[in-house]
Amino acid sequence: MVKERTATILSIGDELLIGQTINTNAGWIGEQLSLIGIRPVRVVTIRDDRQEILDALGSMSSDVMLITGGLGPTKDDITKHTLCTFFNTRLVRHPHIEARIAAFFESVGREPLEVNRAQADLPESCTVVPNDRGTASGMWFERDGRVFVSMPGVPYEMKAMMELHVLPELKRYFQPPTIIHRTIMTTGLGESHLAQRIAAWEDSLVEEDIKLAYLPSPGLVKLRLSTYAGSDATSARTRVDGKAEQLYRLIPELIFGEGEDRLELVVGRMLKERRSTLSIAESCTGGYVSHLITSVPGSSAYYVGGVVSYANAVKMEELGIPADMLELEGAVSKAVVERMAIGVRNALRTTWSIALSGVAGPDGGTPEKPVGTVWLAIAGPDGVRSVMGHFPGTRELVIKRSALAALNMLRKAMLDGVLSRPMVDENL
Amino acid sequence: MVKERTATILSIGDELLIGQTINTNAGWIGEQLSLIGIRPVRVVTIRDDRQEILDALGSMSSDVMLITGGLGPTKDDITKHTLCTFFNTRLVRHPHIEARIAAFFESVGREPLEVNRAQADLPESCTVVPNDRGTASGMWFERDGRVFVSMPGVPYEMKAMMELHVLPELKRYFQPPTIIHRTIMTTGLGESHLAQRIAAWEDSLVEEDIKLAYLPSPGLVKLRLSTYAGSDATSARTRVDGKAEQLYRLIPELIFGEGEDRLELVVGRMLKERRSTLSIAESCTGGYVSHLITSVPGSSAYYVGGVVSYANAVKMEELGIPADMLELEGAVSKAVVERMAIGVRNALRTTWSIALSGVAGPDGGTPEKPVGTVWLAIAGPDGVRSVMGHFPGTRELVIKRSALAALNMLRKAMLDGVLSRPMVDENL
Repeated sequence: MVKERTATILSIGDELLIGQTINTNAGWIGEQLSLIGIRPVRVVTIRDDRQEILDALGSMSSDVMLITGGLGPTKDDITKHTLCTFFNTRLVRHPHIEARIAAFFESVGREPLEVNRAQADLPESCTVVPNDRGTASGMWFERDGRVFVSMPGVPYEMKAMMELHVLPELKRYFQPPTIIHRTIMTTGLGESHLAQRIAAWEDSLVEEDIKLAYLPSPGLVKLRLSTYAGSDATSARTRVDGKAEQLYRLIPELIFGEGEDRLELVVGRMLKERRSTLSIAESCTGGYVSHLITSVPGSSAYYVGGVVSYANAVKMEELGIPADMLELEGAVSKAVVERMAIGVRNALRTTWSIALSGVAGPDGGTPEKPVGTVWLAIAGPDGVRSVMGHFPGTRELVIKRSALAALNMLRKAMLDGVLSRPMVDENL
Repeated sequence: MVKERTATILSIGDELLIGQTINTNAGWIGEQLSLIGIRPVRVVTIRDDRQEILDALGSMSSDVMLITGGLGPTKDDITKHTLCTFFNTRLVRHPHIEARIAAFFESVGREPLEVNRAQADLPESCTVVPNDRGTASGMWFERDGRVFVSMPGVPYEMKAMMELHVLPELKRYFQPPTIIHRTIMTTGLGESHLAQRIAAWEDSLVEEDIKLAYLPSPGLVKLRLSTYAGSDATSARTRVDGKAEQLYRLIPELIFGEGEDRLELVVGRMLKERRSTLSIAESCTGGYVSHLITSVPGSSAYYVGGVVSYANAVKMEELGIPADMLELEGAVSKAVVERMAIGVRNALRTTWSIALSGVAGPDGGTPEKPVGTVWLAIAGPDGVRSVMGHFPGTRELVIKRSALAALNMLRKAMLDGVLSRPMVDENL
């Protein structure tokens, strides 16, 4: 067995300590390290302060330290000079980096100032790590078999530097055991119910030496399968794929994708492939479902538009809901949500439509329809289907969870091809 | 001058290191400490591991350490037992805490298990800190004039514990210098342009011994004024208020609120006070403006509804935009966005309306209308007013920034009472 390698993440910046910026870099870096088989054991956040940086560098006891922050044109003296002190080296100007900085400024029609050019002053003994998205270079140092990498704190720049340069180089340097992963995205069941449903399958993972992690977020649970590959990556891949396949057979209706898939991406892809179009009528979610759908670049290829029918008058006029139906059944009802779906689909002449009507809270709940009660409907070529959900949590969470449930309902309707429930009259 | 007190935040949890959960607690705690005059100097995140916890406790060099995590019913052995080791004490059952735990379970109709009751086993030498929102108690230890507080990692529970018990107790214990704050929310100018605009005023803060921090986020810049009160809090308050008043006179159109205000809350409050109603027609923002407005509890009092007119057909049919106007001017144009605003206001019979039409990207830009070009319009009792903006950044940022710009435009229109631009015909 190869020795497990460990990592410390050092985040530098006053703004992180006083809560002005949330430290999202550390979590992202930790995840990326785990994925290549290096274990993050500690994150330390400190001020832009020479002595604090020296203390943190000196007390590092992992195989690798990844440092972010303190490299901007106004702050760079602190981190760079402190690294020079720690590694007994000095800053020298790197002409090819200076040329890149000048080119970067020219490309946006500006003249680089001396503070910008000074970003090409880098420690003599380090290996410079290219920054493909900005002007602050990274620095790679080695000492006694340990590695220290300093990167900018801007997430967009740091991530590119990690993916293109640092992670591949760490793999080469430490040769950590290869880990085979698959991350399967599920929706429709909470973590504990999902765990119950797949308990026997989960137990069977042990004999294949596969680990399972539940990664829940509102409305979703990611299932991450992982195993060490040893010397035979192909057989490890086969083991993981075999178990993933069993999972697909076990909970086909709950799985909507893998890896970085989001439900709105998957639904968008399916609509596009089928050359289908979508319209949306929202009440309690107030535009959030439309926002999710249109957050995907290119969504205008299938999303035609929608109506946010917050007031009953809009439900009546824009969606053709009869006044007596609203009065008899209430806005949060099977009858109304189905008419909303049919109404918006007819008005905008789309293949599919989604409708939601519910009680997002915190007020407006009743004993019969408590906060979190949401009716969801999908209308399609074969009619309309609806279901009532009870979504827990705050107003924000009810909105998020019911929106994801509606997208998942549309996904399933497209997979099935037809709607199984009885139709209601589409021609209002 | 009172000695400045410092704090270290210790976050315990494997899930934080591998990026499964983002450490939002540490930033929040850091902000709260800053606000009462205790300076956060270090955040350390470690695994649920006895030796790691002991090392972190032993190397603490601040006046106070705030510890979160590792107190759940399944994990509590680690943190609690390690604290007992470090403080040379032992766990004893606290009957009144056990009674509270039992009552908590009864209130949700369940029987407490022994693992739940065991949460009443707490170190003999600590002061128990009540958890008003859960069953894991906090623990307050003192040693050599230093304070260690252990709290649960669930943000909702930890925040209540901090606000109700820990922060007041820290103030009493350390008597940090009182800090007087005002946080003024601005929108409409980026950080660097804003800094230019208020440079002279900012320079004048020095003589009043007031510090200014710029806290930017997409579309917004918070300005935080703060000063030490010394022994005379009233005079410090007067100093800060005087400078805030000057700022209000300097940039009245950029300030929309203070403290925790969000633009959608402010606009909602103004609509409610004026008994006015709102409708929204969105194209490039795809429902995001409606989502912001309806994220506010009680927004149904003023928000009637909206149309997401992604396809041109919807702009024509639902909003009454003439086909030749769309063809001649293009969907992203002054003429179209004004008609959208008028169309939705007429259709839904509201006091005010907002309309947006633009290029969110990443595709769809042209040399004349590059990505980030967004036309914004407000229609009201006196007609319609529109403006074109160029919003930088990714698709997500263009959507966020233009949505906030539209809300700010509505806010200003309500303040002015009338629209200053020439009217166009409202009766399409």
